Amino acid sequence: MKWLAKVEVTLKQAVLDPQGVAVESSLTTMGYENVKRVRVGKYLELVLEAADRDKASAQVEEMSRRLLSNPVIEDFSYSIQEAGV
Amino acid sequence: MKWLAKVEVTLKQAVLDPQGVAVESSLTTMGYENVKRVRVGKYLELVLEAADRDKASAQVEEMSRRLLSNPVIEDFSYSIQEAGV
Repeated sequence: MKWLAKVEVTLKQAVLDPQGVAVESSLTTMGYENVKRVRVGKYLELVLEAADRDKASAQVEEMSRRLLSNPVIEDFSYSIQEAGV
Repeated sequence: MKWLAKVEVTLKQAVLDPQGVAVESSLTTMGYENVKRVRVGKYLELVLEAADRDKASAQVEEMSRRLLSNPVIEDFSYSIQEAGV
């Protein structure tokens, strides 16, 4: 069975995010002065084969920890859904 | 009122994603051979002040189109929720 995993990787709150500061500054310059905070992270979509949702979920968790994120400075969250064809 | 917007920016399906190919290749090397497709995009969190959800939503849509994504090669989607303090 095929599963679609959506993984969001974000910098931990305590970690400085220069890219977010740059985007916020650009938005302010463009007139969007009501934007108070911007954080930039990564977004990944993976399609994987697994017997059931629990197995898919466990594997996505493991891959996120081992490769997709840097646990020292980043957090991750993910959701799993059945993939179309 | 404060709103938290979560924006996902992804490459259009037809656009080559070398970063995704690299991640997929790394995962295969690590033994995750059941991973069939990986696409890498950006994930942004923005906090903004707006009178109501519709205004916040319209502004996030506009900012995504004008700055956060490149409409030629990227798609975006977003969700809006009330922000904590």
